[in-house]
Amino acid sequence: MIASKSRSGLSVSGAFVEANVVDGKFITKVYKARRITKRFKEKSGIAQSKELKRRMDTFLQAAIEEARKGLAEGGIPIGSVLVLDGKIIGRGHNQRVQRDSVIHHAEMNCLENAGRLKASVYKRCVLYSTLSPCPMCSGAIVLYKIPHIVVGENVTFKGPEEYVCSQGVKVEVLQDPVCIQLMRDFIKTKPELWNEDIGE
Amino acid sequence: MIASKSRSGLSVSGAFVEANVVDGKFITKVYKARRITKRFKEKSGIAQSKELKRRMDTFLQAAIEEARKGLAEGGIPIGSVLVLDGKIIGRGHNQRVQRDSVIHHAEMNCLENAGRLKASVYKRCVLYSTLSPCPMCSGAIVLYKIPHIVVGENVTFKGPEEYVCSQGVKVEVLQDPVCIQLMRDFIKTKPELWNEDIGE
Repeated sequence: MIASKSRSGLSVSGAFVEANVVDGKFITKVYKARRITKRFKEKSGIAQSKELKRRMDTFLQAAIEEARKGLAEGGIPIGSVLVLDGKIIGRGHNQRVQRDSVIHHAEMNCLENAGRLKASVYKRCVLYSTLSPCPMCSGAIVLYKIPHIVVGENVTFKGPEEYVCSQGVKVEVLQDPVCIQLMRDFIKTKPELWNEDIGE
Repeated sequence: MIASKSRSGLSVSGAFVEANVVDGKFITKVYKARRITKRFKEKSGIAQSKELKRRMDTFLQAAIEEARKGLAEGGIPIGSVLVLDGKIIGRGHNQRVQRDSVIHHAEMNCLENAGRLKASVYKRCVLYSTLSPCPMCSGAIVLYKIPHIVVGENVTFKGPEEYVCSQGVKVEVLQDPVCIQLMRDFIKTKPELWNEDIGE
């Protein structure tokens, strides 16, 4: 694990460093990536590498778990979780095959599973998805005014992210290699199913 | 019933007029509105008043029937039908109350009920809705590349019609008084439910 000072704070690789001056002494604490919570990061204000973020993001991991569940069921491996104040309140995955559904994309399934929520709740949520939301899912995000989405990747498919941004939604794209590989492998084996899912 | 010649062809009120020259004679036929099919109108190329269109539109009537079904079930009165080559292949209505659903808006429910269709089928469809599609439903229309939507009204609520148009979808808004009244009455009695449905 290497930690080095940078302009923006501390750049890290596989670890996270908190630096403080206590009783005139420069004290550093090195945390292993898996122990660092999002809350800690936000509180510390210390800069964070994309790679570290990817590793640490337990919510993206939860979305990937959903994608894998879908794959195990013979479905399209796209997963999503809805997070409120640091807690997952909804999980879902694409159900095209499982339910013969044209509307249960991962994000839609996640929102449906989260149940009927007040507008004031949606406004405090972050929606995670392993893949860039398609126009339908993007529309649902805009409808419910979810202010922040974290996207596993948009290499395989890119939804109308500019439109979503223009509606005041913060869009973060992580280009997570696990998410990319999941879709790459799936599309290689079932291209027609993938095309159906994106209306092609 | 009155029919008068206009620049664009024949403007009509409650009737439809076909004009031809047969054996040197100018022949006109007056059809009652209810007997005029969409196909005939398209073939004839004769201009058509909005009012007549509204009366004739059996598909909008079918969407209104769906909205009324929803109302009778204690739900939000918005209905939709999917039309392929002049035949209804899917019907649906808002299911927020009935299914405790946040994704089964009328158009979504209609698309789900129509089942998994090929892209080549969606491309020949017209989607009717009693109310201007919200961002989510608009996104579904864009996703499946449905080329034409007919909207009962957008007085009560206006979805992102400009965005939908920018994606190559033809949007027709009829401002149907029955559709407007249905929503007006409903919102007066259950404003909180309506607000929830549009993420307010």
